Amino acid sequence: MKGLCILGSTGSVGQNCLRVVSSLPGRFRVAALSAGKNLDALARQILEFGPTLAVVASAECIEPLRLRVNSLGHRQPLRIVSGIEGQKEAVSLPEVDFVVSASHGVTGLEATYEAIRAGKQVGLASKEVLVVAGELVTRAARERGVQILPIDSEHSAIHQCLRCGLSGEVRRIILTASGGPFLKTSQKALASVTPEQALKHPTWRMGGRITVDSATLMNKGLEVIEAHWLFALPSSQISILIHPESIVHSMIEFVDGSVMAQLSVADMRIPIQYALTYPERLAVNGNSLGLDLLATRRLSFQEPDTRRFPCLALGREALQKGGAMPCALNAADEVAVEAFLSGALRFSDIPRVIEKVMAFTPSVELNSLENVLECDQEARQRARALVAGLGSKLRTTGGTV
Amino acid sequence: MKGLCILGSTGSVGQNCLRVVSSLPGRFRVAALSAGKNLDALARQILEFGPTLAVVASAECIEPLRLRVNSLGHRQPLRIVSGIEGQKEAVSLPEVDFVVSASHGVTGLEATYEAIRAGKQVGLASKEVLVVAGELVTRAARERGVQILPIDSEHSAIHQCLRCGLSGEVRRIILTASGGPFLKTSQKALASVTPEQALKHPTWRMGGRITVDSATLMNKGLEVIEAHWLFALPSSQISILIHPESIVHSMIEFVDGSVMAQLSVADMRIPIQYALTYPERLAVNGNSLGLDLLATRRLSFQEPDTRRFPCLALGREALQKGGAMPCALNAADEVAVEAFLSGALRFSDIPRVIEKVMAFTPSVELNSLENVLECDQEARQRARALVAGLGSKLRTTGGTV
Repeated sequence: MKGLCILGSTGSVGQNCLRVVSSLPGRFRVAALSAGKNLDALARQILEFGPTLAVVASAECIEPLRLRVNSLGHRQPLRIVSGIEGQKEAVSLPEVDFVVSASHGVTGLEATYEAIRAGKQVGLASKEVLVVAGELVTRAARERGVQILPIDSEHSAIHQCLRCGLSGEVRRIILTASGGPFLKTSQKALASVTPEQALKHPTWRMGGRITVDSATLMNKGLEVIEAHWLFALPSSQISILIHPESIVHSMIEFVDGSVMAQLSVADMRIPIQYALTYPERLAVNGNSLGLDLLATRRLSFQEPDTRRFPCLALGREALQKGGAMPCALNAADEVAVEAFLSGALRFSDIPRVIEKVMAFTPSVELNSLENVLECDQEARQRARALVAGLGSKLRTTGGTV
Repeated sequence: MKGLCILGSTGSVGQNCLRVVSSLPGRFRVAALSAGKNLDALARQILEFGPTLAVVASAECIEPLRLRVNSLGHRQPLRIVSGIEGQKEAVSLPEVDFVVSASHGVTGLEATYEAIRAGKQVGLASKEVLVVAGELVTRAARERGVQILPIDSEHSAIHQCLRCGLSGEVRRIILTASGGPFLKTSQKALASVTPEQALKHPTWRMGGRITVDSATLMNKGLEVIEAHWLFALPSSQISILIHPESIVHSMIEFVDGSVMAQLSVADMRIPIQYALTYPERLAVNGNSLGLDLLATRRLSFQEPDTRRFPCLALGREALQKGGAMPCALNAADEVAVEAFLSGALRFSDIPRVIEKVMAFTPSVELNSLENVLECDQEARQRARALVAGLGSKLRTTGGTV
């Protein structure tokens, strides 16, 4: 049995990961679960999957989790630890073979890095890990012979398509994007869209930030950076196509003119199971994850509009500038999206905040995780200050900033 | 350099094969060319590619070819031989590494079988070889460790998609079909379609019989049988989807819910080059074979209608009955299509002829090529007699037979 540690077990990917584990009895043993502050959900997961170690966000969550677990009647031995050090302990357990990195934003960065250095296989859902520290993380993976298996549906698709040729035979990879809820919204109307509208993703059910990132196309910008590190390709060999039906999850065009595509229903269990069982494919229970091409709408493809959705271009710009830039981009985006969701920032101001933070970011290399985290913090502070400024303008003018 | 023998060099696949050879200088040496009676085209090919051996249909073609070759100023040594024995000699030449089997119908069967027994790699365009003698041919290939590389666009697509998993992980393969020119024609109107209409294929430019076979969907029935032998799957794991745009050339659904698809422009040079260069993919010259997904229509899929197109069901029936049945099916279809093209048979009578020939065919195994060819001849005679009967009825009644 493969021993699992799941970072971010109560999030959307974490929960789906445990559904996959349940659907394949006898294949996996959940050795450790790490979550943030959703202690009720974590306690239920502990009861069901019986890990020997649980990690919570901070020390003050330990006792409350213990109480919940006990009140559910859990009788197996369980250690509860907290914070980054707790996460590092979890990924390093000798009984852990595979670490699912699915924490919110960059909060799983250090533990994921530690997992790679400990030679564990990694399934990566937190694309931020590669966006902010791609060079450090992929270098460590090369050194330890660790293969990072993507859990993003697009990158899982690319991983699958890559099997049809050698890496030198790739002309370009084509990441597909649903286009989000505002695919047909005019530039003017984008200024006044609400958080409720932005959170209505047409095809995928995901967490809040990634859903807004899908609406701004920043998610695709981050994915270009992620693909660069996962597949060692320059930005020029990574194309984006809008594909509103979210059936084709990505494609590879080979040098001989053949295009390979991976299709499936929009359900994260498919890329999760692929990563967990690779190099095998295992049958899914029943036919709930079967793709019915007769029932789907026609598949269509169109060019992304970087005028209405400048975040995509910002993502490419950050990758091309390299160094600290992708880290600053990611931090600024996270702050701007939070501000938008709390009503403190217009939708169309999200890219403005990011652009300004990038303009402030020096062209330096990030040679250690400490440097990365420092850059992340600085960019967040800048972004918060910008949000405050734009927010106050918003309140005083009541109009376009 | 890989030494090539091309059976059927003046046909559509043969010509495209030579275009691929020209586009990849230094990769291939054309050792032998075999054609039927198109001596002008064969002479030009000899001049351009300089094979040491040429094969013509019959002894009386040898001298006329020699004259043409000489009049073109060809000065290199060239042997010219004829018939089946000539083809066998060509495939067995020590300088031949790879045999492209692209002869008309079953005329290349014996030479292809000989090539496999001589341990040559085979690129198979003549699906009839596997339809009529799948068991004999695949058994010989297994015994000699020969991999048969498909040149049909659908089967090439399947070969590519299969690389994304293990054979036990395939839930089903999905062969796509353009649906042909009569996709939307009513059953009643099908009775009176003309050869000119049937020869207007919406997406592919091919020879006459395969174009009519695409219009009746018999081509897809033959492809189900071909896929059965190439990929060792039962009929129940081989689905057909109508895909009028001919962009997705076929797909595989894996047990984990992932569907892999191969897409490209509808140009035979892509599957030909894939087979010739496998396991490598080589860059095609320029971007003429690039797929522009932005310029394509939306991709759509629908179920085939076996009521209007009974040939597809006949193909499956022949595969399920096995033994002599696929051979009889193929022979009857070839005769019926020829009769349709010459105006001697209605379009809607093609499946009737085939069905009746199948009803006459005994359930016997075909244990040798001699048995296969005998069965082929008997079925052709039956089909001709049926065509004559239907044709005379057609003339006397002037209406539906």
